[in-house]
Amino acid sequence: MFWRQTQIRVGRLCAVTLQKVTTHSPLHVRLHHCSSEMATDRIPLSTDFFIRQLFSTPSSTYTYILADVKQKEAILIDPVLEEANRDAKVLEELGLKLKYAINTHMHADHVTGTGMLKKLLPGTRSIISKASGASADEYVNDGDTISFGRHQLKVASTPGHTNGCVTYILHEQGIAFTGDALLIRGCGRTDFQEGSPTILYKSVYEKIFSLPDNFTLYPAHDYKGMTATSVGEEKHFNPRLSKSLEEFINIMNNLNLPYPKMIDKALPANKVCGLYEVEQK
Amino acid sequence: MFWRQTQIRVGRLCAVTLQKVTTHSPLHVRLHHCSSEMATDRIPLSTDFFIRQLFSTPSSTYTYILADVKQKEAILIDPVLEEANRDAKVLEELGLKLKYAINTHMHADHVTGTGMLKKLLPGTRSIISKASGASADEYVNDGDTISFGRHQLKVASTPGHTNGCVTYILHEQGIAFTGDALLIRGCGRTDFQEGSPTILYKSVYEKIFSLPDNFTLYPAHDYKGMTATSVGEEKHFNPRLSKSLEEFINIMNNLNLPYPKMIDKALPANKVCGLYEVEQK
Repeated sequence: MFWRQTQIRVGRLCAVTLQKVTTHSPLHVRLHHCSSEMATDRIPLSTDFFIRQLFSTPSSTYTYILADVKQKEAILIDPVLEEANRDAKVLEELGLKLKYAINTHMHADHVTGTGMLKKLLPGTRSIISKASGASADEYVNDGDTISFGRHQLKVASTPGHTNGCVTYILHEQGIAFTGDALLIRGCGRTDFQEGSPTILYKSVYEKIFSLPDNFTLYPAHDYKGMTATSVGEEKHFNPRLSKSLEEFINIMNNLNLPYPKMIDKALPANKVCGLYEVEQK
Repeated sequence: MFWRQTQIRVGRLCAVTLQKVTTHSPLHVRLHHCSSEMATDRIPLSTDFFIRQLFSTPSSTYTYILADVKQKEAILIDPVLEEANRDAKVLEELGLKLKYAINTHMHADHVTGTGMLKKLLPGTRSIISKASGASADEYVNDGDTISFGRHQLKVASTPGHTNGCVTYILHEQGIAFTGDALLIRGCGRTDFQEGSPTILYKSVYEKIFSLPDNFTLYPAHDYKGMTATSVGEEKHFNPRLSKSLEEFINIMNNLNLPYPKMIDKALPANKVCGLYEVEQK
């Protein structure tokens, strides 16, 4: 089965016709804000700003190195225990000093690498939100700022997947790290760790969808080989969050997901920077 | 086991001392060009240039969407058959028209998505190097240019993994797509498909390492969760290609790799844009 696509533009609206070519199914017509505006007005990264995305296969987790390339100061967002040696090696090769190992929330699907990175790279400090309930060297709340070199991460509280979920925003670079609050064409589940679809919907609309459409969004996970998205894309094409609140609640309350397989192992470890397991070895 | 790192800089040279902290092993000292220059002078992407990296897990293959965001014209580099529907959907959502589906070489580890994408998105044309021996709508040779919107990919012949391997370079954006010629901290094997370590070494040094150190390099695969690298990083830290030609040949001739598990299926399919299999279904 394949399809033929035709677009008819009327101002900012598009009629998209999708016609199945091998079958004789009726023409499917969708009217929405024109998707051809999804890939415009890119915000260029500063020449002194460095970003490198890293992936951990077992839990499909993305880790991000951000750095000030002049001052050689770096941070890591959402490091994974099993990849801590890799991450430390990349930082060393890049000549970057790790200032903070940061989590977007207390993960239930993998053990954080923050504790191990503190051992591998002495001087590193761990950060998580106060509301997460996990221990760290420093705690952040909504509106706080985390500095590395001349760059600044702004902390936006985005609860709903967990109480302590935050999104980290770099306004100058036009990018944000959404953790599990917003995934690419999806979102984190809301049936564990004080999850609430109503709270998550409010978080995403108030703190993430309120950013400019051309902001690039980097999630904590992806399971389909997607690496990044944008505010505009998710507003239009997120199959859950583009819906009304009522529809969203209905979707989230009927996902029928299995019990999170790593949760009983990951949560006790992540309460103490992932070192629960390490100390037992 | 973890280690403590100290750097002593003497001009452009660094002495890096790595000390194992839990054991009393002797201090390991390495002298090399200073790694702290790895993350400087980033080249900003043009605001009208779009890039999106995509991943296919079974063969650990990266596919890239590149586009001119004003003219809405896109190309795909190294698409994978099983992901063709995903790729077509992303292009549609972004409002981009696919002009070319391009391969860096005739892959032996996965079936290309070019043929399927031509069916999904009529008007798309396939491109591969003339030297690959595979069929396509258009063939390219060293020095050729592929245009999409106002942007241009420059074709650099980089044989050695296969005879037909090319690297696609966007000089204005400071990025290059190296296929299997250069992988992150590695390279493609040279024991199949007319592979030759001597030819590969020459290709990488003449066509890739001759680019500025701050050019970002995107490979066709990665198996360790790395997503990108730079010319400077690979010159210094590629465990194979940072060595002398003699050492490189010795390494490549002693990898003792297993027979490529997909090669008997992938090569006949990839000779005909991946449609060999599709037509049999």
